[in-house]
Amino acid sequence: MQTSFSSPLPLTQVHITDAFWKREMDLIRNTVLPYQWAALNDRVEGAVPSWWMHNMRAAARVVAARKAGKALPSRQQVPGMVSEGPSPDQADPDFFYGWVFQDSDGYKWIEAASCQLSVLPDEALRSQVQEAVDAIRAAQEEDGYLDTFYTITGIENAFTNLKDHHELYCFGHLAEAAVAWWQATGNDDLLQVTRRFAACIARRFGPGKERGCPGHEIAEMALFRLYEATGEQEWMDLAQFFLDVRGTDPSTFALEENVRRKRSGQPELPVTADRYEYYQAHLPVRQMKEATGHAVRQMYLCSGMADSARLRKDAALREACERLWHSAVAEKMYVTGGVGATHVGEAFSRPWDLPSDTAYSETCAAIGLVFFARRMLQMQAKGEYADVMERALYNTVLSGMALDGKSFFYVNPLEVDPAACEKDTRLSHVKPVRQKWFGCACCPPNIARLLSSLGAYLVTCREDTICFHLYIDSEIEASLANSPLRLRLSANLLKDGKVQLTILSGSGEGTLAFRIPEWSGAWHCSAPGKEAREEEGYLFLRGRWQEGDTVSLDFSMPVRALTGHPLIRETAHQVCFSRGPLVYCAEEKDNGPLLHLLRALPEAEARVEWQEIGGVDLPVLRMDALRQEVTDGALYRPLAAPRESGVTLRLIPYFAWANRGKGEMRVWLYR
Amino acid sequence: MQTSFSSPLPLTQVHITDAFWKREMDLIRNTVLPYQWAALNDRVEGAVPSWWMHNMRAAARVVAARKAGKALPSRQQVPGMVSEGPSPDQADPDFFYGWVFQDSDGYKWIEAASCQLSVLPDEALRSQVQEAVDAIRAAQEEDGYLDTFYTITGIENAFTNLKDHHELYCFGHLAEAAVAWWQATGNDDLLQVTRRFAACIARRFGPGKERGCPGHEIAEMALFRLYEATGEQEWMDLAQFFLDVRGTDPSTFALEENVRRKRSGQPELPVTADRYEYYQAHLPVRQMKEATGHAVRQMYLCSGMADSARLRKDAALREACERLWHSAVAEKMYVTGGVGATHVGEAFSRPWDLPSDTAYSETCAAIGLVFFARRMLQMQAKGEYADVMERALYNTVLSGMALDGKSFFYVNPLEVDPAACEKDTRLSHVKPVRQKWFGCACCPPNIARLLSSLGAYLVTCREDTICFHLYIDSEIEASLANSPLRLRLSANLLKDGKVQLTILSGSGEGTLAFRIPEWSGAWHCSAPGKEAREEEGYLFLRGRWQEGDTVSLDFSMPVRALTGHPLIRETAHQVCFSRGPLVYCAEEKDNGPLLHLLRALPEAEARVEWQEIGGVDLPVLRMDALRQEVTDGALYRPLAAPRESGVTLRLIPYFAWANRGKGEMRVWLYR
Repeated sequence: MQTSFSSPLPLTQVHITDAFWKREMDLIRNTVLPYQWAALNDRVEGAVPSWWMHNMRAAARVVAARKAGKALPSRQQVPGMVSEGPSPDQADPDFFYGWVFQDSDGYKWIEAASCQLSVLPDEALRSQVQEAVDAIRAAQEEDGYLDTFYTITGIENAFTNLKDHHELYCFGHLAEAAVAWWQATGNDDLLQVTRRFAACIARRFGPGKERGCPGHEIAEMALFRLYEATGEQEWMDLAQFFLDVRGTDPSTFALEENVRRKRSGQPELPVTADRYEYYQAHLPVRQMKEATGHAVRQMYLCSGMADSARLRKDAALREACERLWHSAVAEKMYVTGGVGATHVGEAFSRPWDLPSDTAYSETCAAIGLVFFARRMLQMQAKGEYADVMERALYNTVLSGMALDGKSFFYVNPLEVDPAACEKDTRLSHVKPVRQKWFGCACCPPNIARLLSSLGAYLVTCREDTICFHLYIDSEIEASLANSPLRLRLSANLLKDGKVQLTILSGSGEGTLAFRIPEWSGAWHCSAPGKEAREEEGYLFLRGRWQEGDTVSLDFSMPVRALTGHPLIRETAHQVCFSRGPLVYCAEEKDNGPLLHLLRALPEAEARVEWQEIGGVDLPVLRMDALRQEVTDGALYRPLAAPRESGVTLRLIPYFAWANRGKGEMRVWLYR
Repeated sequence: MQTSFSSPLPLTQVHITDAFWKREMDLIRNTVLPYQWAALNDRVEGAVPSWWMHNMRAAARVVAARKAGKALPSRQQVPGMVSEGPSPDQADPDFFYGWVFQDSDGYKWIEAASCQLSVLPDEALRSQVQEAVDAIRAAQEEDGYLDTFYTITGIENAFTNLKDHHELYCFGHLAEAAVAWWQATGNDDLLQVTRRFAACIARRFGPGKERGCPGHEIAEMALFRLYEATGEQEWMDLAQFFLDVRGTDPSTFALEENVRRKRSGQPELPVTADRYEYYQAHLPVRQMKEATGHAVRQMYLCSGMADSARLRKDAALREACERLWHSAVAEKMYVTGGVGATHVGEAFSRPWDLPSDTAYSETCAAIGLVFFARRMLQMQAKGEYADVMERALYNTVLSGMALDGKSFFYVNPLEVDPAACEKDTRLSHVKPVRQKWFGCACCPPNIARLLSSLGAYLVTCREDTICFHLYIDSEIEASLANSPLRLRLSANLLKDGKVQLTILSGSGEGTLAFRIPEWSGAWHCSAPGKEAREEEGYLFLRGRWQEGDTVSLDFSMPVRALTGHPLIRETAHQVCFSRGPLVYCAEEKDNGPLLHLLRALPEAEARVEWQEIGGVDLPVLRMDALRQEVTDGALYRPLAAPRESGVTLRLIPYFAWANRGKGEMRVWLYR
């Protein structure tokens, strides 16, 4: 067990050169960020308006009028959770439009753009970010409060509905953006905005002040990040307050709900916390055992809890994190690394309930799982954490975006029949093709900020140890016992499991630790002169390192036929295939329709070939299989030996599905 | 092809003596009807009130006041579709409570009770029916109109919402009840009520009058029944009008909806019929090809269409019936004879979409399928019609009621995991145990009326032919070319496929036709001296019949392993077992939990044994099978040879499931 904890490197020190991932990151820079900037400004034809810049400008006018003691612009009534709104050119400039959490979309974009600026200067992008930052500054109230919904619709209602109205969620994304912008450019303008809003929140909530906590978590992890970036203790204290008050009796959510109910003459609710499982506010966090409720929220809460456990060395909180980790990944995770099985509340379902066709598996929830996993890795280099992080990243997160960066999945099913999606209201949340944008557009900018900050997930360091978690080709500047090292990590996991680390310059005494992926068969390491030790899925190599030293790792990468845990009803008697970090699927495009009639032969030899899909060369699998013939006849018929014929089963990486038009898809195949 | 059509025998001429079915019918008489009578009078403690008698009495007071020119009782506002209402002892005596179609529950009960009275006099039951009939008579308006909802809440709104407000549906059940009561007792009081209500309807709707048709069909088949019972042509004409106007442009449903929308200032809807598929009113009936929308309504419409095709020798309508039959039973029927796969609208889903766990398969829809099948049989003795009728009857209809007659299923799934039903909102319609009563209590009295009239489904006759469709032990009075015959049909299908027909008395020249069940393996017939011909699944025996003649049929009854059509995704690579008319299922009670881990060995020899379930001795199946062991470990793991151990698979008749407490159930098993 390690006794000190590790940190990711600043993005400026990790230069990703990977054949596959560099393309994805460039896609974000060159396609996704410009598109999203246009979307935030409501300049994408045919797309649902974002209203982000609109709302900022409307709020700025209110703030300016208030400061000047002038009459406020005419304001609409407080709308419901969503307003479809008119087309942008017919909008009332003084109205608020969109969801109450719309502000966060632009914050995510700023974070993504800032991460890109960390690794490559780009004056045009920088000036767009500055425009966004300036818009935000102008929308901030004099006391630091910042939320366009309440500024526009009635500041007197601020902080009255933490459960549903997401202003602390928006704050969290603001803080994440501000830190990224500051770290990328040294410009602290948004950080100042954030500090002022945080101080405004801290004046109201905290020990001895008002009790309250976010209905949609993220403020916790964002405040810990703000603390780590600035060293300012008060933000850690505020984050910790939000964690500690959560799920305690009387429920803060019940209390604020009762204030509203009383006002409208409705009877009050009981104030016990147990009704708030959907919000992970049904139990004090240290007592939590099961991942429940809205999956993104649960993952964000876990990330904040893990930050706290690490930064405050809180053993009880760390144990709760470990229990929630186990619940989420050992009982409730899809083979693709997706979590949140049910569209009812975008939520975790029961253990082992992992339906393939009605799956929700939201892109943002997989992103949240990556956050959580990295934070668990910071506490302990344990192969399982990195394995799950890699699984979510290479499969569900990537599936969330088309290979051309122009369309997105919110929901990532493991089985799709387009005819069913179109006609069956039970599947109305499942789209067989990616969408250009969403009214609730949380996923596209979340993908952008995760992929733009990928460098923060490869390596974590503590004083005398550098841990390699993801094998993504890159050049890394790190240090070992305060001696700087330049490292080259050579890898191409889409091709094979050969990994090489070279010390390009510098020297130091200490440990380099390399993850041994769970997907690896036999493996071999060559690291002359180093003392080797294997523990918890990592290979620790200790010694003196100097320029020219190399570590060669050769992880075998067999095609693996996987089966689900026997308690998963949906995967019973089925098989799926994976190789390295990639889970595979069958598409109609390659295999014809009626994929349920295919029968895989797990003992058949799989061949790895390369195929161009959506403009990208990807490793695909080919193997012999059987296909039941469709024979006319009765709806129910005596079981004869089913007439099956031999076919070649063609599987592509799951993340690449739905890039060649609409068709059936299946991850799990009968055997 | 036969040129004349056949009719069922009056219930007074079919005395069921079958070991199994006599028990079911006695259960209806001794348990179900008394329970339902108490329910209709809101005298069942802890059950949802029916409000039937309450509403009749409240309506009667309105009618009496109106006739006397006195002030009407205070009336509530027109409620929505349902009013939960207070407990019966706190109800306002002048209010309407319950669903708008609540009247029909009592009509169904009268029909069931009357059918019972047809075969066995029972003074107590008769006087209860008379009490119900008297209550109905008192609630009838002076012009013949009869619907407690509108009488109580505002007669001026009568007939303004045929689409949703079910007054023509209630009329249909009234007519069915009136004919049954008259045929059982010769008492025409309810028939007079029906004639007056029918005349009231016919004054308003018909050629040259207002266009309109029932939103929930049944009036059509009920009016044809009224015509057949009384010979009064006007009822056939009204039924035919309802069929002919249905689905034509401009849609009568759109027109009446627009009247209401206009009144409330909403924009009008387009008046084309195509939006009304849920109501089977999207196309003229003769153009219909696919069974769609609400399944009970579709089956009742088909029954009315088949009546019309037969009575009016309408070839185009008959072809439409045949197309709808094919769609319903060859593409959209469960192996249990259930129809209507989706709870969304209690409706037919797409062809081949037959999920086991989210199945709706409403008891009433299977009853409607029995109605439809019998009517198709009246046009043609075709084995398929009787096979489906038997399948629905022995499986889904029977499943609708507990073996003790005290609780009921509305929904009949083919796979149940009680934990999922309790926690998964996607399964909120699926109950793992039968319920005592329902707010929408259509199913229990519908089972009662079908089982009480079972005699009408065994045999149909035309001048020179008696067709035997269901092999249920009974004594039958029929005639052949006008010569009366007394027949004994000996059978016990739960035991074996031996059937014997004996002429007890009488003689005649003509044909006795016997269905050759599709479940039969090799079969043998002994009918000395008769000319035999096999056609469309029936064996026609022609000759002179006289006292002492016997026909001995020996249908072999192998245990059959069935597989679903390859286009049914849900049953792919699975198998179910049946024997004779019975479909079997596995229950947790006999096989332990986690039924998805069982693997049937279709080639294993099945043993038929007898087992007492819920107080009834039933034939059960035993066979060798495999069960995958639950091994701890990763959620996803390399596929090794699954660890399976040999077990004895224990299957019980599907209809008998959930009679021994709550547990898992599966019809389809992996193989």
